[in-house]
Amino acid sequence: MLKCSPMIAAVTHRNRLRVVQKPRPRLRPDWALICLRLAGICNTDIEILRGYHNFQGTLGHEFVGEVVKVASPKDRVWLGRRVVGEINISCAGLGSRKPCSYCRLGIPTHCARRRVLGIIGHDGAFAEYLALPVANLHRVPASVPDEAAVFTEPLAAACEILEQIDIREHREAAVIGDGKLAQLIARVLLASGLRVGLRVTMIGKHEEKLRLARPAGITTLKITSPRTQRSNQFSLTVEATGSPSGLALAQQITVPRGTLVLKSTFHGAANVETWPIVVKELTVIGSRCGPFPRALSLLRAGRVDPRPLISRVFSLKDAGKAVRHAQQPGVMKVLLRVS
Amino acid sequence: MLKCSPMIAAVTHRNRLRVVQKPRPRLRPDWALICLRLAGICNTDIEILRGYHNFQGTLGHEFVGEVVKVASPKDRVWLGRRVVGEINISCAGLGSRKPCSYCRLGIPTHCARRRVLGIIGHDGAFAEYLALPVANLHRVPASVPDEAAVFTEPLAAACEILEQIDIREHREAAVIGDGKLAQLIARVLLASGLRVGLRVTMIGKHEEKLRLARPAGITTLKITSPRTQRSNQFSLTVEATGSPSGLALAQQITVPRGTLVLKSTFHGAANVETWPIVVKELTVIGSRCGPFPRALSLLRAGRVDPRPLISRVFSLKDAGKAVRHAQQPGVMKVLLRVS
Repeated sequence: MLKCSPMIAAVTHRNRLRVVQKPRPRLRPDWALICLRLAGICNTDIEILRGYHNFQGTLGHEFVGEVVKVASPKDRVWLGRRVVGEINISCAGLGSRKPCSYCRLGIPTHCARRRVLGIIGHDGAFAEYLALPVANLHRVPASVPDEAAVFTEPLAAACEILEQIDIREHREAAVIGDGKLAQLIARVLLASGLRVGLRVTMIGKHEEKLRLARPAGITTLKITSPRTQRSNQFSLTVEATGSPSGLALAQQITVPRGTLVLKSTFHGAANVETWPIVVKELTVIGSRCGPFPRALSLLRAGRVDPRPLISRVFSLKDAGKAVRHAQQPGVMKVLLRVS
Repeated sequence: MLKCSPMIAAVTHRNRLRVVQKPRPRLRPDWALICLRLAGICNTDIEILRGYHNFQGTLGHEFVGEVVKVASPKDRVWLGRRVVGEINISCAGLGSRKPCSYCRLGIPTHCARRRVLGIIGHDGAFAEYLALPVANLHRVPASVPDEAAVFTEPLAAACEILEQIDIREHREAAVIGDGKLAQLIARVLLASGLRVGLRVTMIGKHEEKLRLARPAGITTLKITSPRTQRSNQFSLTVEATGSPSGLALAQQITVPRGTLVLKSTFHGAANVETWPIVVKELTVIGSRCGPFPRALSLLRAGRVDPRPLISRVFSLKDAGKAVRHAQQPGVMKVLLRVS
């Protein structure tokens, strides 16, 4: 009786993670049960442990796993497949008979009722098993190893930028930030702008993180360099520092009528002057979850290899230790090996 | 000897305006001398008196006047014409042999060397005469009275929004703010969205100002109304409060993937949470100076009538008094009559 068996899971407990035994998730119609292989720790997980979204339950939303059970016979084809999964569960996935206005508009990532894996109202991926609608799943190509596939979710978030802007219009792009997401974004921009000769500059605080970007062909600049502060250098700037500090610099280095993409979802107010947006007529675009097929296609073609970003792999039972390690200076992606 | 004759002008003097005698402006090649008829006081003028741009000289950038002299014989056709004028003087107007990159790109309003009438490095319109490149001038149609034509510059700024977004994609628009610019923006949106049945809601603090909007067909809402605070109401929101207060509300009332236009150029940092821009994937567009022909066409067709916004007309010699009056509660557009 699979559904009654216990499993281990890392659940939020005040500001920490606690590894506990809990029942395996039950399936709704059209859902699948996924046996986890690897899960990734994201800055959002750290934010959640600090109180963001006031989430209670199993943490984690970056994963690769294997379908071990489906609720509906039509979905049996998925059994045994290695998959990654989109994290927003919308009206369709929740079995809502009357979809909300955003689902009707075809943007289920903004579903008014949405639950989000390991973030809002739905148990996440730091566990032996998770449940998701089959519609959220994507098969991982055989050539993509688990250690790369586990990056699909943040890589898709990086790819969202390509859905929002026309990369071919740009020759000089900047990514402010040198963390995990910033590193993926810089690689996605570089791979996608290759044909038009796009130059991608990563602006960061940490030499040891900038050093990771250079072998991928990314130009790097220390944030403290006088060269960094020069006004009007980039037609496209992506703010991905994960802190309020990047917005003012982003406004400064973006050319008039340029595009500034915001990727940081830190909470808390920043003291920001907004008049440069008006005077320079900048377009500021908020960017969140993105297209999994595009991310998987970059991984399959080997156009982005995220594996050099892996700092360390922990066992699921050491999830608490792993999350603490992920917050140490200089540490990039920390993974949890589940099975 | 016109160029040696004195004139009166209202010049910045610390935080006040002082009416003085000074020489009439000299003309560069391809420039025109304009004898002022009416000038308008804008919030930017008030900001300048508070230190914005550290501007020293004759204030004023909204005007209607008559061309009385041209520097180049080819421009004689302009003599005697009633005109309004664009306020940005770019490389071409400054006779620069090597245009800056923005002028080369065809966006002279962002010229790197630009001077701006009554704002940056060039004497403005609160005077008997001003000088501008002929290329900046637009003839005022005979059917448009001076009292409407003097609004062309701010009306063009309102029209800039129509260059940046596709108004036909929207059914519900909000303008936050009930001041002079907000009133013009609401009228422009309403007139331009008429065919698609666009509803325009003005959200403001001042009942006496909101009352001015209703006869034009604009729905009004007090900012304190519970109805105002409802999330995700408008696909297009224009922030035109002239203060930092409007941005948070704008983020709240705009639908996911909606468009938020920033029109306020107040200085000083605002304490702003930017994560809603990311989570809702909003597009935030800074918007500044706009197309004079579009504004003049709205005035000529009578589709926007700004004259109900005039609070009082002063004589140029009372410019100091006029600027103080313009800062009184409830006062909308204050004009200076020059000749």
